[in-house]
Amino acid sequence: METYRYRNVEKNVMSMIDAGALGLGDKLPSLRSLSAKLGVSVSTVNQAYLELERKGVIEARPRSGFFVRRESKRLPRTETAPAPLAQPRPVTRIGLIQSVLESVGAADRVALDVIAPGPQRMPLRELGRITAAMVRAEPERAMGYAPIPGDQKLIHQIAYRSMEFGIPADPDDPLITAGCLEALYISLRSTCRMGDTVLIQSPTYYCFLQLLETLGLRAVEVPSDPDHGVAPEELARALKTFDIAACVFAPNFNNPDSSLTPDEAKEEIVAMLARRDIPLVEDDVYTDLHFGPKRPGTYKQFDQKGLVLLCSSFSKTIAPGFRVGWMLPGRYRQKALEIKATTNVSSSSPAQMAIAEYLRQGRMERHLKKLRTDLERQMDTMQLHLGRHFPAGTRVTHPVGGAVLWLELPKSVDSVELFFQARAEGVGIAPGAIFSTQDKFSNYIRLSCGYPWTDDLERGVRTLGRLAGSMCRP
Amino acid sequence: METYRYRNVEKNVMSMIDAGALGLGDKLPSLRSLSAKLGVSVSTVNQAYLELERKGVIEARPRSGFFVRRESKRLPRTETAPAPLAQPRPVTRIGLIQSVLESVGAADRVALDVIAPGPQRMPLRELGRITAAMVRAEPERAMGYAPIPGDQKLIHQIAYRSMEFGIPADPDDPLITAGCLEALYISLRSTCRMGDTVLIQSPTYYCFLQLLETLGLRAVEVPSDPDHGVAPEELARALKTFDIAACVFAPNFNNPDSSLTPDEAKEEIVAMLARRDIPLVEDDVYTDLHFGPKRPGTYKQFDQKGLVLLCSSFSKTIAPGFRVGWMLPGRYRQKALEIKATTNVSSSSPAQMAIAEYLRQGRMERHLKKLRTDLERQMDTMQLHLGRHFPAGTRVTHPVGGAVLWLELPKSVDSVELFFQARAEGVGIAPGAIFSTQDKFSNYIRLSCGYPWTDDLERGVRTLGRLAGSMCRP
Repeated sequence: METYRYRNVEKNVMSMIDAGALGLGDKLPSLRSLSAKLGVSVSTVNQAYLELERKGVIEARPRSGFFVRRESKRLPRTETAPAPLAQPRPVTRIGLIQSVLESVGAADRVALDVIAPGPQRMPLRELGRITAAMVRAEPERAMGYAPIPGDQKLIHQIAYRSMEFGIPADPDDPLITAGCLEALYISLRSTCRMGDTVLIQSPTYYCFLQLLETLGLRAVEVPSDPDHGVAPEELARALKTFDIAACVFAPNFNNPDSSLTPDEAKEEIVAMLARRDIPLVEDDVYTDLHFGPKRPGTYKQFDQKGLVLLCSSFSKTIAPGFRVGWMLPGRYRQKALEIKATTNVSSSSPAQMAIAEYLRQGRMERHLKKLRTDLERQMDTMQLHLGRHFPAGTRVTHPVGGAVLWLELPKSVDSVELFFQARAEGVGIAPGAIFSTQDKFSNYIRLSCGYPWTDDLERGVRTLGRLAGSMCRP
Repeated sequence: METYRYRNVEKNVMSMIDAGALGLGDKLPSLRSLSAKLGVSVSTVNQAYLELERKGVIEARPRSGFFVRRESKRLPRTETAPAPLAQPRPVTRIGLIQSVLESVGAADRVALDVIAPGPQRMPLRELGRITAAMVRAEPERAMGYAPIPGDQKLIHQIAYRSMEFGIPADPDDPLITAGCLEALYISLRSTCRMGDTVLIQSPTYYCFLQLLETLGLRAVEVPSDPDHGVAPEELARALKTFDIAACVFAPNFNNPDSSLTPDEAKEEIVAMLARRDIPLVEDDVYTDLHFGPKRPGTYKQFDQKGLVLLCSSFSKTIAPGFRVGWMLPGRYRQKALEIKATTNVSSSSPAQMAIAEYLRQGRMERHLKKLRTDLERQMDTMQLHLGRHFPAGTRVTHPVGGAVLWLELPKSVDSVELFFQARAEGVGIAPGAIFSTQDKFSNYIRLSCGYPWTDDLERGVRTLGRLAGSMCRP
């Protein structure tokens, strides 16, 4: 509880700074006076001040108290003007995406381009210990083929967890995949044929575009609102115009705009697609990273016809490199199994066993609670620094989950150019152009908030702000 | 050295039994007399006799000596009449293959259908210990994404090993995949488009057929001779007739006939394809299981134009369930990387790290030496029992490597029927029909020799022989 109290104080102070009630160099209220005013203990206020100091927002001066160290001018929210629908087009971004991918996570670069939370946020020791213990205890299971659908114990753990979140799943429903991307790949191959048209969210994760391109599928983009994701009326418009084989949507904290489609909209969308028997591939990979108290709903929970293929993984929560994901394939189960069997037979056994045991020991929810708090804080810190360093006219999303921010820069900034300039100065980012088949995000960039704040990250943000500023035409 | 001496004695005795010089119930020469005759020590002869006893070929009677316990009538060799080439056809065996796959390795069944050596033959403890140590020592590497091409250390280990075998490879050439099947999948997607025609060996591994079917490719089959695999003149005939996009051949111990294409034929085949710029996908997964002193050559070592995509894995030698394979993609590297990246990003990190370390510690070659000896012995034992239980007219391959035998039953035996009857009696086999798009192997079955001999296996072979016998029409 104490945790939440000091965070309220912190927010309170932040909003005073945001509103200009406290400016650069101003002295903050004393611990005692603020404690009396807000009805919390002195130590709670102290904790909030220390936190703000850690974030570089205020500073303590010996025997004088706390002072505002920098303006915390937050950037205004990103806005989206719904664009007219473009004709379906083959996806041809692979070249550019490839150059971005080659840079991701390069050791010599400030990692503002990765999307999984940093290793500091993963349960390295706990999961490492469990993996080691499992492999030694059951070497035959670890070295032998897992069944094609996956390790039985892991399947059951995932089914139980799904049911807890209101997703109707039989204990044997989940299929284990090598990460969420493989689940999406299997879903698209189970529902589409080469040349088909797929409806995607815009902006969407560039790996989806790459996937569509390698499968020879065409894309139509539905605008994604940074606050409310895909609107049912936009979907209706697209369905009226095009012959759609499948949809690929990420309703919860869509990468890169972190938009959250409200549950009522989810229900409406599932019903609309069900009337037309169109499959919906749901990317569920960020759902566990909600900052609010309640896990957002999924498309799958409204699925009555088996048309929703839910795809998820453990890559954004506990172990990216384990490559363990899963899918609830609905009515496409048989086809999905065939594709898994002919692609790589089954997923790696040691990783599956370790995660099954980690879940069985009930460690997941405790870890997630901590992870969410950390990510929210990291995002908050990032926002403060963006406000300080980025040129006027920049806007940013205010997500309530996930791990990335989506920045809209002044129109004159070409984010691909910014990507190359930043790379030359040792900073990795993802340019907006790679999140769409169209050119409408050429002045956007995506920044990761997955890593704990460091001087290196601050340097990265400062560099970016400077480069972006120099690209602004008055 | 002692190992080889007693095996020579064993072979000597076996050939006497084979030739009829020693019949059922006959007394074997005394240890002393045979030792004098062969010029080896008494204990060497004793070791050979104990081994033959263990295999159930002879028995010790107290105070009387050793006696022939069963006839060791070996089945004659399988023969192949080169069949005329059939038209390219879509592959449509998935239904049948699926029912076979569902049974493979079922716990309640005698496992004559699995193809990897049994867990008793895997370095469970050693590799388990190394995995545990690596994950604990480097949790960040274990839980983080491996680079798309794979763990750097593993890539280097594989490159070094390839170079040792005369395969020209740069240290960074190998791409790590999730098992050999994924390497084959990536190879086919890198070289073919839907509707293309692919040349395969006949018989061929049924997973290749499944793979062709899911990728929408058509197959033309080149006959594989049980002794010499694919003959260059057969290939020439096929190339003259059809427009071939790629070949998929397993030159060393092809599954299921365990045929071995001679190195001179390999060289000729590579040259023939190079003249036409046709890519050759090489399945190298059994090469390490050679019984002879020298590792057979590969197509890749003759490849001068980067047209050979060598595919291999550790699944048949140390850890099937780790799902770690690799490919040397030649000129298709860029395309292969794109497909890997869009399918599942990269392979599971802990498994890659563990195998890299296992190789680095130099444990592989020692393990393989033991594994080969074990497999040769298991195959030998299986052959003896087949001779005893199978109906007259049955023929079998005499492989010099690999882990499977390929039986040609009398024409009247329908092996799919045999598969179902055997399954009902708790015995798993692979029926010949699934190894071809045509019907020419309907009286063949494949039996695994991957497991150490047990009473259960003997019961399985006896059951199979009885069932096959009852299906023979006079």
